[in-house]
Amino acid sequence: MSQNIFNPKSIAIVGASQNQKKIASVMLNNLIKDGYKGNIFPINPKYEEIKDLKCFPSISDLPESPEMVCIAIPALAVESVIDECIEKKVKSVVIISAGFKETGEAGKNLEENIKNKLKDANIRLLGPNCLGFINNKENINLSFARENPGDGNIAFISQSGAFCAAILDMACKDGVGFSKIISLGNKADIHENEILEEIVKDKSTTAIAIYLEEFKDGKEFVTLAQKSNKAIILIAPGSSKKAQEAISSHTGSLASSYDTVIAAMNKGNIIQADNSKELFNLIKLINNHAIPNGRNIAIVSNAGGPGIIATDAIEKEDLSLSEFSEETKSKLKEKLPEEASINNPIDIIGDALSDRYDTAIRTALEDKSTDAVLAILTPQLVTEIGNTAEKISNIYKETPKPVYACFLGGKDVEAGIKILNKTQTPVFDNIEEGIRLISKISKYKENIENTKYVDCKDFLKKGKYREDIEKVSQNEEVTIASDELAINILKEFEIDIPKEIVTSNLEEATEFASLNFPVVIKATAEDLAHKTDFDGIFLDIRTITELEEKFNILKENIRKRTGDPSPKVLIQEMINGKAEMFVGANREGDSDIYKEDGLGFGHLLAIGQGGIYTEIYKDIKHILVPECDEKFKKILSETNVYKIMDGYRGKPELAKDKVLDLFKKIQSMLITYPEIISMDINPVIVTEDRAVVVDIKLYIKK
Amino acid sequence: MSQNIFNPKSIAIVGASQNQKKIASVMLNNLIKDGYKGNIFPINPKYEEIKDLKCFPSISDLPESPEMVCIAIPALAVESVIDECIEKKVKSVVIISAGFKETGEAGKNLEENIKNKLKDANIRLLGPNCLGFINNKENINLSFARENPGDGNIAFISQSGAFCAAILDMACKDGVGFSKIISLGNKADIHENEILEEIVKDKSTTAIAIYLEEFKDGKEFVTLAQKSNKAIILIAPGSSKKAQEAISSHTGSLASSYDTVIAAMNKGNIIQADNSKELFNLIKLINNHAIPNGRNIAIVSNAGGPGIIATDAIEKEDLSLSEFSEETKSKLKEKLPEEASINNPIDIIGDALSDRYDTAIRTALEDKSTDAVLAILTPQLVTEIGNTAEKISNIYKETPKPVYACFLGGKDVEAGIKILNKTQTPVFDNIEEGIRLISKISKYKENIENTKYVDCKDFLKKGKYREDIEKVSQNEEVTIASDELAINILKEFEIDIPKEIVTSNLEEATEFASLNFPVVIKATAEDLAHKTDFDGIFLDIRTITELEEKFNILKENIRKRTGDPSPKVLIQEMINGKAEMFVGANREGDSDIYKEDGLGFGHLLAIGQGGIYTEIYKDIKHILVPECDEKFKKILSETNVYKIMDGYRGKPELAKDKVLDLFKKIQSMLITYPEIISMDINPVIVTEDRAVVVDIKLYIKK
Repeated sequence: MSQNIFNPKSIAIVGASQNQKKIASVMLNNLIKDGYKGNIFPINPKYEEIKDLKCFPSISDLPESPEMVCIAIPALAVESVIDECIEKKVKSVVIISAGFKETGEAGKNLEENIKNKLKDANIRLLGPNCLGFINNKENINLSFARENPGDGNIAFISQSGAFCAAILDMACKDGVGFSKIISLGNKADIHENEILEEIVKDKSTTAIAIYLEEFKDGKEFVTLAQKSNKAIILIAPGSSKKAQEAISSHTGSLASSYDTVIAAMNKGNIIQADNSKELFNLIKLINNHAIPNGRNIAIVSNAGGPGIIATDAIEKEDLSLSEFSEETKSKLKEKLPEEASINNPIDIIGDALSDRYDTAIRTALEDKSTDAVLAILTPQLVTEIGNTAEKISNIYKETPKPVYACFLGGKDVEAGIKILNKTQTPVFDNIEEGIRLISKISKYKENIENTKYVDCKDFLKKGKYREDIEKVSQNEEVTIASDELAINILKEFEIDIPKEIVTSNLEEATEFASLNFPVVIKATAEDLAHKTDFDGIFLDIRTITELEEKFNILKENIRKRTGDPSPKVLIQEMINGKAEMFVGANREGDSDIYKEDGLGFGHLLAIGQGGIYTEIYKDIKHILVPECDEKFKKILSETNVYKIMDGYRGKPELAKDKVLDLFKKIQSMLITYPEIISMDINPVIVTEDRAVVVDIKLYIKK
Repeated sequence: MSQNIFNPKSIAIVGASQNQKKIASVMLNNLIKDGYKGNIFPINPKYEEIKDLKCFPSISDLPESPEMVCIAIPALAVESVIDECIEKKVKSVVIISAGFKETGEAGKNLEENIKNKLKDANIRLLGPNCLGFINNKENINLSFARENPGDGNIAFISQSGAFCAAILDMACKDGVGFSKIISLGNKADIHENEILEEIVKDKSTTAIAIYLEEFKDGKEFVTLAQKSNKAIILIAPGSSKKAQEAISSHTGSLASSYDTVIAAMNKGNIIQADNSKELFNLIKLINNHAIPNGRNIAIVSNAGGPGIIATDAIEKEDLSLSEFSEETKSKLKEKLPEEASINNPIDIIGDALSDRYDTAIRTALEDKSTDAVLAILTPQLVTEIGNTAEKISNIYKETPKPVYACFLGGKDVEAGIKILNKTQTPVFDNIEEGIRLISKISKYKENIENTKYVDCKDFLKKGKYREDIEKVSQNEEVTIASDELAINILKEFEIDIPKEIVTSNLEEATEFASLNFPVVIKATAEDLAHKTDFDGIFLDIRTITELEEKFNILKENIRKRTGDPSPKVLIQEMINGKAEMFVGANREGDSDIYKEDGLGFGHLLAIGQGGIYTEIYKDIKHILVPECDEKFKKILSETNVYKIMDGYRGKPELAKDKVLDLFKKIQSMLITYPEIISMDINPVIVTEDRAVVVDIKLYIKK
């Protein structure tokens, strides 16, 4: 993207009018009011002049080529303006007008036409169906926002204009500024990745907030995020099926699965906001540099009850109460009244004035184990709301560790909250909410260390079975790979599988079995496919006698079903594991996903407890490949099945290293054969020294 | 409790002063300012007159006996005032002063002394360590609250003065009134149950909000709640261990387990608030009668993005989007612009004025499937914030189904939120939060139907083994009941257990086994207790030969450990179940819990998936006994193990009726033998026609 797209030297506004209510008029007003320094050309055949500016009947009539043209007229009238823009050789176009892809087939075609024309003419396009943009660093407000909250260090990119409006209104109230605000609209050309790439380099921006309903290219988005040295906060709705349907009808695009989006945020070390208020509060925290170095929080409160609520919330959100040293405790004892509680949470009791807050907060901050202080205020009789707010904001400015304020109440505490907002001191109006946010940003900080960029290229190799895979994926259908191909591929990646033979010969069978007892005998997958209620498997065979008996029964059973007079039987060593895992994968994107211009997120791995109750217990975590060892370890450790592998209730520790190794081999396999659109491994049996893939299904599609 | 305790005809205030900053002075001011009609007697030896009222040196010097005496002087000076109160025959005392039980041993003794003296004199006591109380129905403000939010229909009882202060400040901002506000303090005498009992009868109160850290008598509290026809909203912190420690140090009392508290709320149909803001918002919703008749919500939004966020939240919070009829859709199509989305969530798009909101909301409300409408507003360019607020509040007043507003933003939306608060129309500033609250109150409404009072008395019977139990529970220790006693008790309640015999005779063993194959043989509990690594169990024995072999091995093993030359062996039918459950119980309170004056919550049942991974998968639900069948069914259906019993993935349905039956028998057993302080049944094996208790441990204590 041209660096200058959001800094045009001249702008024409098509649709500007003397009617102040028209969107284009509002944009013109905003542009002038916020001090745009370049040339402005209102375009409207009805007027000679608007707002003391000469008005032109059309783009064609302009004396010079404007760098940017902003169009806010009915959708059906847009295309002819585009033609003029092309003729006039403008550099970029912003289409505000709605009525395109989001409205159905006709609108989609219209948008395609315009998009293609502009692409051919090498003209960039923001929108259509957007709010415009604000670049406060250059005093450019080319938007129809009600109000511009002013300059600041945060960039905000939003696919929803309305969401943008809500956040700006919050920002105006609390005095939070933005470097750039960009409304993406339908993303016909310019999309989030391009902007993100620019903004990551932009020195005047310290963090990026994003509202996104669907991702233009997920893999690239994650890579940009991984490489960004700026915090990225994302709100991406769509956790429910109904919401995904709504996104599709609303944006005209397919939404990614929510599991994919969550995995992407985890991989890209993106901070996830759950709602508009959380997004805004996270923006404020990041803007105020209020990120603690660890999870140990000290609570200072002028009452016991709120301290207890905070203690609950701290545990719920995976934070800890800092453990004060004896030195800290004796300092607190000396400085606080006798009735105060000097353990964390510190209760400085109801008659605490601002000085007591000051003392307690500073002492708690000095303690080595404390990473941050949360100061809770309830408006009691003598509570100095304003003074306490000032004291807290002073401490916040002076000390490297963050202090958060939580002022509980309504009418009286408002004055304190205003002071804290004005001095850019983090403040919450709800203990639980505040602690959730502190947890999110402290985990973000920790996650940075685990976030390592792993390049797909390091895994790309020419697979031994490339030709077989291509043969299977020739047609458009999803095809299940044969057992033979699946097992060959597992072997190619040195994945541990049970020893087995397929034979119709009893002698061969007993020879194999006697070396590998206990064994399982079963019909082959091809034979099993015949019937669902097929008595086709015998487990835990321990003696030659038993093997002979079951071998003959099984052959007889198969013969009855298939008519094959001498059917083959599969004999497999039986793995007695202590834990069963499940590993699944789904590809998002086409099979060219790992190529330079492949779109999509790639393969999403699902790992968790195996067996038939996987779904009931929902012990599943998701990972986008490729991922580094540390992240694999971390995510595995978040599953319940890991606790079992870790040696639960005196049971032995299982081969977790082999499990990690397996994940790496699987991701190598998926990237080598991206035609694997879906994969089921259930179970992986984990013993004390092996992680064995007992059953695999590979689904192949180009 | 005397009905008049919060309506005294005269009040003396000990500690009132001409120094306006003293707490007693603030209380005197509040009393006068809010229009108290009775006699007021300031008590202070330093002054002749305070605030135009004659001041007396002491209670003894008063010309008449005041009905209530309020004491706000240092703790150590309180006892002598109490002595005067007793002499003067006052009816009740409010002790504001802190420095009692909450500060440690000395304070505890002081409080005990005062409490006992007053009890002997038949004088009631509120506090100590409280904020006082406000009775707005009688214009009595005997509190040192900063501000009284005024009269209303909600009663608020709080164990934390600070929490009270925060809620009142919120109420002052949003214009919410209270009938009574009572700060409980240390609850030396008057406690929550007594007040609750009164308020439930109080016609001027429609709902009750409570902050409680520990329960005076849990069982009674739940019974009162079950019998209440008024909504009760409770915030009870203590979900974390650290918080429970903090509660103990802060209140000087033991906190109930959080599982117990949650089960109590469920049993009593109490609405649970998680934090102060939620408590306040729930108060507002109940106050505004904004309870929907069902879970089907229609969303009306002036933007797609927020509609999607709402859709996600609706699924997350167990609500549904109402499904519009074709009639509704065609009405919407007719009345809304073409670009609007007429499916739920309804997107009335960015240029929606207040009229369009009005139309869409009314149409959605008319649809039969809609139980309530959530109208979301983002402050876009032309959005009529104030007018839309007025339209919504008019609809709210006119229609029986509730309409909730959610205004997203900060500065500009504030005006709309003010109008909605003023007209008592429910309004949120956050979609997710709002939907969580709607979910809570709609579940409350549903839960009423499942909340049936079950009387312990219906279960109380003289157990056959009463004498044995009493023998075991004679000492102060927890004792494990013998296998024999445990099994006898199970049999007494006709609980299904495996057939078994205990014998040292092989002939007897084979006779039993041949009738009951497959069987298990194992050492008896007494023998097993000898060693932990004891090879004392053989499962799934199917033949006489195998039985003989294992019988002899086992006897030999036991002989080696115990020296018993002819040890007995337990032979049991082996139950092959499809699901394993766990049922545990813990008693909270003494063994007189089910008697008239027994304190505590009683037995908490824990039910869930059995086996060794019960704790890892946390598939556990809690129930306070006694409970009705409907509630048992409902709670069982919330476990994952129920899904398995229900016939998961084509498996057969298991004997859920037998499981329910088992629960009822167990609760009958616990109430009959309240000496069972703890019980472990793991597993209950559930087959297609049985629910069999395979292993039970009963812990007995007086």
